[in-house]
Amino acid sequence: MDKTIRQQIYSDVKKWIYQAGGEQIRVQIDDKYQIDTKSSANDLVTEVDRETEKFFAEKIRDKYPSHRIVGEEGYGDKVDTLDGTIWIIDPIDGTMNFVHQKRNFAISIGIYHDGIGGEIGLIYNVMEDVLYTGIRGGEGAFRNNEKLPQLTEQVSIDTSIIALNSSMAFDNNRINEKKVQQLIMDIRGTRSYGSAALEFAYVAEGIVDAYVTMRLAPWDIAAGLILVNEVGGITVQANGQSVDLLGTNAILTCNKCIKEELLENYIELK
Amino acid sequence: MDKTIRQQIYSDVKKWIYQAGGEQIRVQIDDKYQIDTKSSANDLVTEVDRETEKFFAEKIRDKYPSHRIVGEEGYGDKVDTLDGTIWIIDPIDGTMNFVHQKRNFAISIGIYHDGIGGEIGLIYNVMEDVLYTGIRGGEGAFRNNEKLPQLTEQVSIDTSIIALNSSMAFDNNRINEKKVQQLIMDIRGTRSYGSAALEFAYVAEGIVDAYVTMRLAPWDIAAGLILVNEVGGITVQANGQSVDLLGTNAILTCNKCIKEELLENYIELK
Repeated sequence: MDKTIRQQIYSDVKKWIYQAGGEQIRVQIDDKYQIDTKSSANDLVTEVDRETEKFFAEKIRDKYPSHRIVGEEGYGDKVDTLDGTIWIIDPIDGTMNFVHQKRNFAISIGIYHDGIGGEIGLIYNVMEDVLYTGIRGGEGAFRNNEKLPQLTEQVSIDTSIIALNSSMAFDNNRINEKKVQQLIMDIRGTRSYGSAALEFAYVAEGIVDAYVTMRLAPWDIAAGLILVNEVGGITVQANGQSVDLLGTNAILTCNKCIKEELLENYIELK
Repeated sequence: MDKTIRQQIYSDVKKWIYQAGGEQIRVQIDDKYQIDTKSSANDLVTEVDRETEKFFAEKIRDKYPSHRIVGEEGYGDKVDTLDGTIWIIDPIDGTMNFVHQKRNFAISIGIYHDGIGGEIGLIYNVMEDVLYTGIRGGEGAFRNNEKLPQLTEQVSIDTSIIALNSSMAFDNNRINEKKVQQLIMDIRGTRSYGSAALEFAYVAEGIVDAYVTMRLAPWDIAAGLILVNEVGGITVQANGQSVDLLGTNAILTCNKCIKEELLENYIELK
């Protein structure tokens, strides 16, 4: 992607994300809204998710009509290839937190061009007014206007903090629970925040050293992958393969120092 | 405790907590400090924990020489009974978060008189500058200057979010892991934040519906118990008995609606 175009898009998406988060979601956080369920009783979606995605889809189609959109809530396009410029959008990542906590959720937008790496990633923690940004080209990642340092090379398994879901630690269809149990015993601590986008952002900040999770959709991954890349971290499928940006992935995103040991000793998909 | 004295103490402790958190810890958060371990390699303590407890101990002994202090870091008194006025202090709750994340930790102070309930509870999320307070006497609990509503009566197990540690979900010496696994499958979601004091505060806010945890010390519990009481929640030992404020407790703190079902069907200590 041309650098000038990238900067123009970055400027637009940043403006739109502040509009959606700050002028719309944050000021209406205490209003009543309809809550529905999707694939299961705990897979929540609200009017706010839908309206926010619609807002972005309209802005993008108006300003960048040739770009395509992959969105969680149905306002996107049917996208089978990574050709051209693609916006991958989660209007509210962590909808359960949005509903129950009125905080700890994020708008997540990743922009890709011709399938090559990622161009622009943004994760906006709406209630804390913290915007994480990453732009291709070695400029690094930012938390608001503060540049995030490259991830430390001082991390080892025994001193690491890892974000994971407790349901991976017992009998399940996706991951060897015995190895997860050993991981939990060997590391310093686990955390669980309930928003994949924020958990990626925390890996990029270095406040958790890895995030392991099953079955993420493209919009859960797209922005976070770019942020983690920009600070020298790595994101792969939990079986070690490259991420499939248009599919469902079990994900490991982490500090590079512990990637091999995690994949060799602790993470084994079923 | 006399109401006027209670108000005087409240006014003092609030001032001291802002001094310790705001003027000392927050401004020095990026400084280097010594990190040691206590009972295990993951039980961290820093100079900042010690200095903060010392700060409170000196203030209390100067202003209230007859009061006794129970503190995590050794600046307190040897306290065997709940007679008189007792300050129970955790200078930094969530030391692992303090060290690794430079956020998500709290100063926690509970003040008790003659063993009757709790008089004053304060939990200060230092980096977010959010002070949770609760005072005996039906005035309720506050998040900064905003009064927290009484906990909803609309909570049921299947829609609840519960804070717990993933190590409770597999073979361990303390709690029936099969029942914890069933709990994780039956509820809407689990969370884990790494600070007992903040997890109590989140129960008081109603953003998690319960917090279940093993082996808490008095300073992990003292302030949170008061806050949760003030919004109509309840805190018991995880076997259903009353909390022993001077001992080590496995704890359930929760919305009253789900207490009986949690104790009957899901929480069984070994």
